[in-house]
Amino acid sequence: MPTLYFATGTCALASLIALEESGLAYEARPISFANGEQRSPEYLAINPKGRVPALITDKGVITENVAILAYVAQIAPQAKLAPLDNPFEFARMQAFNSYLASTVHINHAHKMRGHRWTDDASAIEAMKAKVPQTMSESFALIEETMLEGPWVMGEQYTVADGYLFTLTRWLPGDGVDLARFEKVSAHHARMLERPAVQRALAAQQS
Amino acid sequence: MPTLYFATGTCALASLIALEESGLAYEARPISFANGEQRSPEYLAINPKGRVPALITDKGVITENVAILAYVAQIAPQAKLAPLDNPFEFARMQAFNSYLASTVHINHAHKMRGHRWTDDASAIEAMKAKVPQTMSESFALIEETMLEGPWVMGEQYTVADGYLFTLTRWLPGDGVDLARFEKVSAHHARMLERPAVQRALAAQQS
Repeated sequence: MPTLYFATGTCALASLIALEESGLAYEARPISFANGEQRSPEYLAINPKGRVPALITDKGVITENVAILAYVAQIAPQAKLAPLDNPFEFARMQAFNSYLASTVHINHAHKMRGHRWTDDASAIEAMKAKVPQTMSESFALIEETMLEGPWVMGEQYTVADGYLFTLTRWLPGDGVDLARFEKVSAHHARMLERPAVQRALAAQQS
Repeated sequence: MPTLYFATGTCALASLIALEESGLAYEARPISFANGEQRSPEYLAINPKGRVPALITDKGVITENVAILAYVAQIAPQAKLAPLDNPFEFARMQAFNSYLASTVHINHAHKMRGHRWTDDASAIEAMKAKVPQTMSESFALIEETMLEGPWVMGEQYTVADGYLFTLTRWLPGDGVDLARFEKVSAHHARMLERPAVQRALAAQQS
């Protein structure tokens, strides 16, 4: 049975939602960032990057949301979580997920993880100041050019929806008013109605 | 015929190499970052993110290396540029590519693109100072835990190799001695021998 290592409040929620939507049997195993468990020798043996999510499968470990989300969709084709038979549409979904991972999540990370990129305390404070602006700009681009509606890819729900939902939840803490983004707000509300999303949120809190 | 928009010296080289390896007919169209062409209305109509690479297909535009690389591998299966029939191995390749996009490239970007995350001139300088360290740490992790050899995924060359090669080329400019990383150095030398890589490098310069 696949085991997902996650930490509450992190981007790993996207993988948790995908697994809940997939119908696959899996185990969710929380680690505590507050206790630094992601840097423990036990966890580094699983994921040397010291990050979440990490999915343990019978073939080995998969890291990075972009990879885990597509993998879950591929091994549970009956759940129709990705346009698996259309390389162009699959690429569009991967491009969306990759934008979240390498631009939006990075913008957000400059609030709490500035130490990754500088050791200068005043520079870390300076980075925090721009987070509301960079997150607003990213979500404006998502609102205006990416989110088709009702789901990210249009009529078909995909793993990209759980990923967008995960990062949308960060907006209030990043000083951005979600209500400014009409389509993203509607998407967020729609996601909260899905039983799989409710189960993933409950698993995160338990 | 697909058209790849790229800029010399950027991560778009990874997509250029994948297209050369694929054997597909395509057009390579350079844009000039020096002239700010990525912010022109014409280019923003193609890619509202104002970044490269962007691949124009007969179905629409695909952005983000992680998505373009997998797409090229999928539409040119005869070139065997990805483990297309094995979801676990495909996920491992995507995880590698996603790590390059969302961690390694981001580390590098703090040298020249610090203005993305702060408007404070001294903070931008402070970010530059840590680039040699963050790039060294990322490549140490690649050397020790990811690059199987001779290619990223082992015996089979994949699109991940062109992506690693692209970011490896940034090391000297980022203040990191490539020779410190034995496997990455050997990989870089091996890549330079491939005719498709030579053609991609020539296309970038022409």
